[in-house]
Amino acid sequence: MKADRLLIDCHVATMVEGPVPYGAIQDAAVVVADGRIAWVGPRADLPAVDAAETERLDGRWITPGLIDCHTHLVFGGDRSAEFEQRLGGATYEEISRAGGGIVSSVKATRAASEDDLFASAMTRLAGLKDTGVTTVEIKSGYGLDRETELKMLRVARRIGREGGVRVRTSYLGLHAVPPEYRDDRAAYVDLAIDDILPAAHAEGLVDAVDAYCEPIAFSSDEVSRLFDKARTLGLPVKLHADQLSNGGGAALAARYQALSADHIEHATEDGVAAMAAAGVVAVLLPGAYLMLRETQTPPVDLLRRHGVRMAVATDCNPGTSPVASMTAALNLACIQFRLTPEEALSGATREAARALGMLAEIGTLEAGKAADLAIWDISRPAELCYWLGKPLLNAACRGGKHV
Amino acid sequence: MKADRLLIDCHVATMVEGPVPYGAIQDAAVVVADGRIAWVGPRADLPAVDAAETERLDGRWITPGLIDCHTHLVFGGDRSAEFEQRLGGATYEEISRAGGGIVSSVKATRAASEDDLFASAMTRLAGLKDTGVTTVEIKSGYGLDRETELKMLRVARRIGREGGVRVRTSYLGLHAVPPEYRDDRAAYVDLAIDDILPAAHAEGLVDAVDAYCEPIAFSSDEVSRLFDKARTLGLPVKLHADQLSNGGGAALAARYQALSADHIEHATEDGVAAMAAAGVVAVLLPGAYLMLRETQTPPVDLLRRHGVRMAVATDCNPGTSPVASMTAALNLACIQFRLTPEEALSGATREAARALGMLAEIGTLEAGKAADLAIWDISRPAELCYWLGKPLLNAACRGGKHV
Ligand SMILES: [Zn+2]
Ligand SMILES: [Zn+2]
Repeated sequence: MKADRLLIDCHVATMVEGPVPYGAIQDAAVVVADGRIAWVGPRADLPAVDAAETERLDGRWITPGLIDCHTHLVFGGDRSAEFEQRLGGATYEEISRAGGGIVSSVKATRAASEDDLFASAMTRLAGLKDTGVTTVEIKSGYGLDRETELKMLRVARRIGREGGVRVRTSYLGLHAVPPEYRDDRAAYVDLAIDDILPAAHAEGLVDAVDAYCEPIAFSSDEVSRLFDKARTLGLPVKLHADQLSNGGGAALAARYQALSADHIEHATEDGVAAMAAAGVVAVLLPGAYLMLRETQTPPVDLLRRHGVRMAVATDCNPGTSPVASMTAALNLACIQFRLTPEEALSGATREAARALGMLAEIGTLEAGKAADLAIWDISRPAELCYWLGKPLLNAACRGGKHV
Repeated sequence: MKADRLLIDCHVATMVEGPVPYGAIQDAAVVVADGRIAWVGPRADLPAVDAAETERLDGRWITPGLIDCHTHLVFGGDRSAEFEQRLGGATYEEISRAGGGIVSSVKATRAASEDDLFASAMTRLAGLKDTGVTTVEIKSGYGLDRETELKMLRVARRIGREGGVRVRTSYLGLHAVPPEYRDDRAAYVDLAIDDILPAAHAEGLVDAVDAYCEPIAFSSDEVSRLFDKARTLGLPVKLHADQLSNGGGAALAARYQALSADHIEHATEDGVAAMAAAGVVAVLLPGAYLMLRETQTPPVDLLRRHGVRMAVATDCNPGTSPVASMTAALNLACIQFRLTPEEALSGATREAARALGMLAEIGTLEAGKAADLAIWDISRPAELCYWLGKPLLNAACRGGKHV
């Protein structure tokens, strides 16, 4: 077997489902050729390999490169001033009157150049990459007009070309009603569905369509119209669902066979059962739960009982989850939501890949998949969930190349 | 004025107390000579300086190097397996029977060589240094015999010499009753007070004396005897107090004019008033609060009302706070305990210095103090508390030298 790289003196958490926790292989070998995993297994079974390069990993662990399947990584400004005002005792109304809240992010994002947005997103991506992320989903949704939504999505594509990670984009026009449509939300919904989405799609900027279904955001009917449009364009959908209240978001996501329903703190058993039947992944977002001081955790036991797959993501965003560390998300998912470390790590690899419709390509370490690897200074996989803030990554590669 | 370094094109959060939030100076200059701050102020007021080196900081912010004033950084092994067992549903009893809990850390620490302990502590220190820490307090307490307690403290001293940070050590013999004294705790208390502490002190290994006062640990009477001994040796004291229940720990700390009382979730107003009168700093430890899923927050409003100084620390330890990021501690202190960002950052600089008895030397940026600086890629100090996991540090120096 001809190969580019042979990795030995390592343990591998393949994250392949089965009876072995983490799909772990002790004393393993990984063969990389043409950017793909050519072979992975116990070193003792390694076939004859003619590798251009052999790397001894000193007993380190290899996992699939981590996948952050829910982020709002691209935005202008930040909301640290608002964070400070709120801790100083300001009410939401006072902050809103002072121009804070999501409107301030919309304003800053509209005002920023593509270069500025790219540069600031890269500073946050640095935290994700430091914690092993090789694929990141990035949403629009702070533009809320055609020009800015497309600008955000172009920046996301540029991160995919120049940022050292794979990127999947989601069009999130139904994130909030922009200020200029405050008195005519129906017109904004029309604009998002009939104008912005088709324009973004025509430019090849949209991998999936997302929406925020919540009384404070958009209704099931509005979201359904958007999802119908996505269907006609052949685009998969996903949904911010049942975060702050039960609005039937999980069931709605199931009705449209969404890739994922995200947050779902308030989903009921009906919704969970519908997700299970439709194969919708539950994306759990513990950073927002922390920051908002929520007390209602996602229904993890129900999800387990019904066999719903669980992913974990940072939700990196300026308002409710200024989290730029994938291992922090893992830690918080275990502590706050009582995921086991294996569930959490599956949620940042295999299930996150499933939530992006990319499981055939990434998410587990198996022959034929892309060689997206994270190499860790740990003695067992659970350490990835146990520590908060300890640097654990030794190296990462995407498509077989160091990044 | 002759100087080694002149820093310009920067803003400075001096953290000097007063009417200006963060003691901030916009468009400031800092002059470093002989490892000390020779001058700091508005650039417009900068006197004539003959500096060997001038650095333009592109509008970055400078704060005092951060101070982590409560850690158990030196220990053998880790407890990620136990973390995983617990999330898998194992009870404390099952874990204890399987050799888990603090006893497992004691065993691993006794078995480890000084080199091993140093090397593993350095991997955790890396996370603290990445987040701007230039001074760290390190406790013993996983040895619980003379040999190992002294070994831990020697490793702490070595970190102070070779690790690129200032180190203050605390002897924490009364942390737990070691297994071999389970049936004769009085004998262990005697050993700690009459044998281990004097031996460690004679070797110059002890900067302060600490204890864990809690029904599951040591009583007020036992701690008082230890503190009496500390007094005869001329050593300051501090206390793990009122973490899980109100045991009068805050008042006990006050009675001995402790440098700090740490945790204090369950302290009452009497205890807080006593701390205020005695000038005891409250050290808040949000990592343990998170990890233990505590619901009783420290009495922050009482502390404010009585004028008790508040510090914030990681409590980095393998059992209840595997936190190795100072900015994560700041973030959690704001979100969980509702500290303002200014309170939190004061707690990781000025008040942490006070809690270590080092305020004359470090903790604020003022002429005459050591030039321990953290230089940040932020646009306002609150960003240090707002982000979780975003890399923010541009550079740090200790005694005027880059580390
Ligand atoms: Zn989101
Ligand atoms: Zn402690």
